[in-house]
Amino acid sequence: MRQDLVTGDWVVIATGRSKRPEEFAAFKREIVQEDPGKLCFFCFPEETGQEKDVLIYKKDNGDWSLRVFPNKYPAFKRGGKIKHHEEGPFFKMDGVGYHEVIVTRDHMRQIALLDALEVAEIADAYQERYIDLMNKKNVNYIEIFCNHGKEAGASIVHPHSQLAAIPVISPHIQSELDGAESYYRANRHCVYCTIADWESEHKKRIVFENDSFIAFCPFSSRAAFEVWVMPKKHKPYFERITDEEKVAFAEALQISVNKIYKALGDPPYNFYLHTSPCDGKDYPHYHWHLEILPHTAIWAGFELSTGIEVSTIEPEAAAEFLRNQ
Amino acid sequence: MRQDLVTGDWVVIATGRSKRPEEFAAFKREIVQEDPGKLCFFCFPEETGQEKDVLIYKKDNGDWSLRVFPNKYPAFKRGGKIKHHEEGPFFKMDGVGYHEVIVTRDHMRQIALLDALEVAEIADAYQERYIDLMNKKNVNYIEIFCNHGKEAGASIVHPHSQLAAIPVISPHIQSELDGAESYYRANRHCVYCTIADWESEHKKRIVFENDSFIAFCPFSSRAAFEVWVMPKKHKPYFERITDEEKVAFAEALQISVNKIYKALGDPPYNFYLHTSPCDGKDYPHYHWHLEILPHTAIWAGFELSTGIEVSTIEPEAAAEFLRNQ
Repeated sequence: MRQDLVTGDWVVIATGRSKRPEEFAAFKREIVQEDPGKLCFFCFPEETGQEKDVLIYKKDNGDWSLRVFPNKYPAFKRGGKIKHHEEGPFFKMDGVGYHEVIVTRDHMRQIALLDALEVAEIADAYQERYIDLMNKKNVNYIEIFCNHGKEAGASIVHPHSQLAAIPVISPHIQSELDGAESYYRANRHCVYCTIADWESEHKKRIVFENDSFIAFCPFSSRAAFEVWVMPKKHKPYFERITDEEKVAFAEALQISVNKIYKALGDPPYNFYLHTSPCDGKDYPHYHWHLEILPHTAIWAGFELSTGIEVSTIEPEAAAEFLRNQ
Repeated sequence: MRQDLVTGDWVVIATGRSKRPEEFAAFKREIVQEDPGKLCFFCFPEETGQEKDVLIYKKDNGDWSLRVFPNKYPAFKRGGKIKHHEEGPFFKMDGVGYHEVIVTRDHMRQIALLDALEVAEIADAYQERYIDLMNKKNVNYIEIFCNHGKEAGASIVHPHSQLAAIPVISPHIQSELDGAESYYRANRHCVYCTIADWESEHKKRIVFENDSFIAFCPFSSRAAFEVWVMPKKHKPYFERITDEEKVAFAEALQISVNKIYKALGDPPYNFYLHTSPCDGKDYPHYHWHLEILPHTAIWAGFELSTGIEVSTIEPEAAAEFLRNQ
C-alpha cells in the first residue's frame, strides 16, 4: 500500500494480479470471464484449484449452498507484521489483510433472482466472516462488496460477493465518520437517522420499506437509480445485526436489487456495506447501511477530477420508477 | 446541485441530458456516438446547430483550427443569481456556471497524433477561456478536462476537451489544498515541489522531462500507467503560464499521451488540470499539474466503497515501459 503524499489517501499495488507491461495493451480492461468450455471456478472450487474453504453452509441433503474461501488473486495478503517503508518523502506499507469470496451455489441465480431467505443466508455469511476477522491483528476495517456484471468489474460470472479485511480506514469511511460526528455535535442526533426518518415520512424517494429497514434513492444520488438500504433504528455496527433484522435486511436488499434488475434490464451494479471500523474504538454516531450503485453512467474526466458526480435523473423520479416495478 | 448531508460533498443532477426512466434500460451506458451517415457535430458545428463560438482560432488561410463553444447539454448552466433551497435537512442549489467544449479541427488526429505546437494552441485556448471566466460571478473553480474513447466517457468521437466553471470547490481539490497547506506548515516546503524534485533526481518514475516540466508515474498511482505532468518550479496558478512555458507544457503533455497511445494501443483515457481555485483567495502553497488516467482497470465495489484504488503494476515498471516507447 502506498500513501498519497498530498491527501494522505492510500492505494494498493497488487502485482500478483498483474500482467507484464506489454500485456496491458491486449488487456485494456482486465476481464477474466471463464472459458465456456471449462469448469466454472465457483461451481467447482475444488476441481479448479481454489483456496480451501473458510466457511461452508450445507443443505439438509448434504449439498453445499454457500461457501467462503480466500480470493486466489488477493489484493490483501495474510501476513504477520506490517512493515512500513520509506522512499525519500514517500511512505508505503505491506498490504496485509484478508480477501475472501462468498459464493452461492447456483450459477444462474444472482441476488435479484434469489428469495429473501437465500439472501439472508448470504447475510449470515457476511456476519460470520466479519466476526471471525474483526479481532485479527492489523484488521481495522472490513469491506464487504458485490460486483455484478463485467462492466461493474465482476471478473467471474458466477454470483459472488467479496470481503476485504484491511489495515487502514478508507478515505470514504473516514469522511462519513467525520460527517456523522460533526452532525451529531451540532444537532445531538444521528445524521443517518435524520435521513431515514425524513425519507420514511415523506415517501417520495422510497423504493421499499419493512418494519426495520428502508430502501431509498438518496437525496444526493451520485448515479441514476442509486439505492441505499438502511436500518431504521440507530445501529452503528453491522456485525451486531440480529437474526430477525437479518431477514428484514435480506428482504429489503433482495427487493431493491430485483427492482433495479427489472427496471434497467439486468444492469451491471456494485453494492457495498458501510459500517463502523473494527479498530477497537467506539463509533456511537455512525449508522451502518448498504449502498447499491447501478452502472448507469461512466464517471469521466469531470467526476474523476473533482469527485463531483453528474447524475441525469432526479432521485424522486428514479425512486418512483423503481417502486412501480 | 445537491449536497451530501454526511460528507458535505456535492453532486450535480443534470436532467437536461436525461432520458425518461424507462429509457435507461436501453441506455445502460450513455454513449451518443455520431451516426456514421450524418455530419460530425464538431467538424460542422454550425450545420449541426451547436452553440455559438466563444473563441475561434484561424490559420493563415482563414480556415478555423480550434473553436470553443458552450456545451449543448451543459452540466452547469449560465444564470444570474444562485438560489439555495432546503428540503427538510437537505440542501440544494442551482448548478450555475459555464460548460464549454474546446474542439480542434481534425476529426482523425487526437492529441497523441498532434505536434507539440498544435497542443500549445489547445493550451492557449485553455488559458484564454480560463482568464475570461475566472472573474465571473459565482465561478469559484474552473475544471478543464479531456475524455478520450467511449469507455472513458467521450460521447463524441471528434477530439475535444471540456471546461466547466463551477460555483463550488470540489472535494478532490479541497483535499489537495488541505494536504499542500499542512505539508507546507510542517516542512516549510511545497509538497508538489518535493515530489517533482525527488522524481527528477531519482529518474525511476520519469516518463519525460524538459527544462520546465516533468512527466512521471506518481508514487501512489491510482491506475496502471497514470502520468502526471507538472511544472518543475513552484507555480500555484495555471492561468499565469507564460508562452514559453506553454510550449514546454504542450511538449510534455503530447509526448506523455503519445507514449500511452503507443504502449497500450490507443486506450481510452481521461486527463484533467488541477489548479488553484479562482474564488478570490490566495493559494500560495498549491502547485498546478495535469493528471492523465488511462482506463486500464474498472473501479469496482472495493474502490467505489473505500476510495482506495487497486492498481496492478508498480509505477516504476509502468514508467520504464512508457519511457521506452
